[in-house]
Parts: sequence; C-alpha cells; structure tokens
Amino acid sequence: MSLLVVGSVALDSVKTPFAEASDVLGGAAVYFSTAASIFTQVKLVGVIGSDFPKEHMEYLKNRGIDIKGLKTEEGKTFRWSGSYSQSFNEANTLDTQLNVFASFNPTLPQDYKDAKCVFLANIDPALQLNVLQQVESPKIIALDTMNYWIDNKKEALLKTIKEVDIMIINDAEAKQLSGEHNINKAMEKIISWGLKCIIVKRGEYGSVTIHSEGYFSLPAYPLREVIDPTGAGDTFAGGFMGYLASVEDIGFNRIKEAMAYGTALASFNVEDFSLGRLKTVRKEEVIERVERLREMMRF
Amino acid sequence: MSLLVVGSVALDSVKTPFAEASDVLGGAAVYFSTAASIFTQVKLVGVIGSDFPKEHMEYLKNRGIDIKGLKTEEGKTFRWSGSYSQSFNEANTLDTQLNVFASFNPTLPQDYKDAKCVFLANIDPALQLNVLQQVESPKIIALDTMNYWIDNKKEALLKTIKEVDIMIINDAEAKQLSGEHNINKAMEKIISWGLKCIIVKRGEYGSVTIHSEGYFSLPAYPLREVIDPTGAGDTFAGGFMGYLASVEDIGFNRIKEAMAYGTALASFNVEDFSLGRLKTVRKEEVIERVERLREMMRF
Repeated sequence: MSLLVVGSVALDSVKTPFAEASDVLGGAAVYFSTAASIFTQVKLVGVIGSDFPKEHMEYLKNRGIDIKGLKTEEGKTFRWSGSYSQSFNEANTLDTQLNVFASFNPTLPQDYKDAKCVFLANIDPALQLNVLQQVESPKIIALDTMNYWIDNKKEALLKTIKEVDIMIINDAEAKQLSGEHNINKAMEKIISWGLKCIIVKRGEYGSVTIHSEGYFSLPAYPLREVIDPTGAGDTFAGGFMGYLASVEDIGFNRIKEAMAYGTALASFNVEDFSLGRLKTVRKEEVIERVERLREMMRF
Repeated sequence: MSLLVVGSVALDSVKTPFAEASDVLGGAAVYFSTAASIFTQVKLVGVIGSDFPKEHMEYLKNRGIDIKGLKTEEGKTFRWSGSYSQSFNEANTLDTQLNVFASFNPTLPQDYKDAKCVFLANIDPALQLNVLQQVESPKIIALDTMNYWIDNKKEALLKTIKEVDIMIINDAEAKQLSGEHNINKAMEKIISWGLKCIIVKRGEYGSVTIHSEGYFSLPAYPLREVIDPTGAGDTFAGGFMGYLASVEDIGFNRIKEAMAYGTALASFNVEDFSLGRLKTVRKEEVIERVERLREMMRF
C-alpha cells in the first residue's frame, strides 16, 4: 500500500556534548519518509521556503519519495534548533522559527487521495484531520502529537484521535494526554477512546504497545554510542508504518514486527547527525538488527 | 544450594502521594530473604536493636529463614524514612538513622560457612569482603552497592568486585561507578573488571544484563498501580539469586530466567507497603507472571 505522510520539513541546528551541526536536513516528515521508503512508496505532504537547498530536494526525489505534495512558499523554511545533555534523553529546544510552516494548510495532489495508509506527524490536530478528510478510503491511519497540542488544542486532538487506528507518542505525552501517572493506565485510557493500538516510545528504554490482542514490550537496540537522537521518534514511526503498509495488516503480530523495524531504523538514525546514517542504511542491515533484537529478548 | 545474605534489617517509614506507613519491617536483607526463600534455604546475616518487634522475628523464623546470623545489639534498630513522588521512579530519603547498624561487624555462625551461594547486599564494601572471606568455598557470589560507597569507598568496592561473579546495581549506579554516560558502555566496562555477569535494574523500565554469552533485556512486569516501591531492587535480587541457588547454574539461560523470577517477585512487592504482598505470594503466582513476561516479549 502507498503511504502518505504529512508533517514538517525542516532545517535543524543541533548541539550535543561532543559536536554540532547547523542548518542540516530534518523535520518529522523527512525522517519518517526516509525510514518508510525502505519498505514502501511514500507520498510526502509538507511545505518549504524558497531557501530550501536544492540538494535536499534531489535527495528526496532520488530516494523515490513522491514530493508532488511538498509545496514551496516564498519565505524561509521551518527551522528548529536544540541541544542534548550527555544522557541524550531529552531534547532541549533552543529556538523554533515556524516561517512558512506557520501558514501551512495542506491540499493533497489528486493522485495522493487514494493513499491507503496515512501517517499524521506532529502538526496542528485540526490540520491532521483536514488532511485525513482529503484521503478517499484510508485503511491504516496513525498519528503522533506533542505536548503543545495537548496543552492548547486538546479538543481538536481528541476529535482527530477518534478517526485514527494507531497513536504513536512518547512516555511523557501519553501521561499528559491521559492525566495518568502510571504508563499502563495511561495507555489503557487512551486506547479506550477508540484506537486499535497505542505505541509508547520511551527513548533508550524502548517502546511498549497495547493492542486489542495484548501487551508487548520491546527494548531499544543497544548502542555503545549515540551521536544525535534528533528524529529518532519519527524514524521509528517511519519504519513502523512503512512495514505495516508493506504487509497491509495491523494484527498484533504485525504490530510487534513493525515496532522492531522502527526500533532498528531509529538505532541507525542516532548514529550520525541529520540523516547521515539513515540515508545509507540497507534493508539487510535493518533486518539484521531486528533479528538481533529478537535474539536478545528470547528466554 | 543454601544461600547466604548479608545486609540491612530495618524499620522503614514511607510516604507516597496516596498513603503512608511508619516503622514497618524493611531492609535489603529482609526483602531479599523473603523473595529468595520461595526457591531455597536462606541464611540471614544482619543486626537489629533491642527494640525490634518480636513479631518480625517470628515472621522470619516461620518463613523458614535461618536467623542464627541475625544479632541483637543493645540500642535501636536501623531506621530509614523516605518518600516517593507520583512517578515512583526514585526514593527521596528523608532520614537515615544507622543506630546499631553503624557498628555492624558480621561474624558468621559456624554452620553458615559452608554456604555455596552468597549475596552481599548494599553495605560497606570492606564488610562485604570480610563476610565473603568467612565463607569456605562459595560457588555463586553476587553483590549490590550504592552511590555512597562509590563516592566514599571506591577502592574497597573495586577490591570486592574482583572476588564476585555477578553485580546487580541500578542504572545511575552503573553510570557513576564506570564514569560512562552510555549504559551499554558502562556495563561493558564494569564486566571487564572480572565479573561473569552484570545486571542493571531500571525500575519501571525493567532490567538488562551483559553476560559472557550475550546481552539480554527484560521489561518490568506491567502494573496498573504501584503502592510502594521500597525494596523492589532487593526483592528482584532475592528472586534472582534464590532461583540461581535452586538450579545451581549461572549459564546465560539460567541468568535470563532468574531475571524473570526477580522481576515477577518485585512486581508483587510494589503492590503493598512493606512486605505486605510479598509475604503471601505463592510460587505458582510468581511462575504465572514469569510466563506472562515471556508471552509479552515474544514476536
């Protein structure tokens, strides 16, 4: 199934305790598409400014990602800058410049409307719903969000959640959204709003899911070194949704496997700044890490 | 194999966001012994004051724990008081009164000296070594420690580590002890000091191990409610070592199973204050949770 993603395309500046990078390619939709395109055809919906480097457009095209839905507007591309401490557990946002992203109002190209699989990355939940309504008969729909929308657009977010199958969020967001301190209670509450499945991302501690058929917990892939965790969550979502789109199934076993593919891809992503490592990773390498994960969970 | 444990016996006062308990039975050696006694005969080494309630002595005896090595000294029993926030992730120590524990200098009863399995709970590493040297021919030796000893008695701690097979510590302690921020690097460094295996406890995120035969990660048992996490780490260690003592083997597969038993027991322990739940849990209930853990990791 072809997979549509709507979300940010950005130029990121990132500082870690060991190095830094300025104005590098980033954004949820870019990390997501790069990861997902290992498994399936991706149609990207987003907006960039007239300053967006041509090389990045070339990269997306060469990767086989459909960018008919990536609009160029007069002005500057969305910019995010952040830093990480030595634990790498949380990004500290230093600056956000929405630029052309501020007035983002996506209209789908005609041949995007038959997409069967949709990922609504972290944008205004009203826009997420708007995009979803332009898709004719989606079969698998997932969304992400962030604390800002939970704080400021909760009603719209709850309305969008009612239309989707799978929610992929992080630990803190799940707790905030549900008002529960216990993550298992939080997940049960959120899934009861009509989802088929909720995935909670926990960074270096892995991920957990509740699905109508059960509970599943997956560790992170063990790395000896992290260079830049930016985009790890979006890469996870990309591997996860790309895999699901390729098998056209969201049964429990497929969800578990999809989490493992997302985890493996995220582990490659954090090994370099921007998409440095993700751009070159081969499917066989991803499968190798999935098998290693399987191995280290067997007892 | 019989299992010897040396560590604290305490009266704890605990405050959570929902309830509190004062002067209840606690201490690493008590949680450890209670959990381990499900699998094997436990010999406890510790000290109590003349104020220690008789009912607790009766409890330990009735449980079949050998308390010949539990000395009563004139004075007050070791007391710890702490509180937890809603996340329950870390205890906030409010007060520690060492009392009779301050001059603790354990001498083993004659019939403790043939113990084959030894757990050195968190006490002064010099005392840990002293106890170990009194055991004639131990086959499986493990230790725990805490930030205080890493800060103040590192040399003695490193000396003790050289004599043991397995180290069981938490995430923060592993990072502090190794000076590494990455937990996988931290574990590799510590195991290279001569251990056969290192287990890192990560609270609600489960536990991980590096063993000469590989890497293994285990989630925590998912609970909807935590009442009091005090003693969870010692209960984990008790289930872990009790199981190993019963199978007389520290091969990789046994280590993995032992972690699952420790995890299951710890999950019961946090369901009530003090040893409220742990005292009554049956072996079949523990096995049930181990099987549930196995199930929720399969993919």
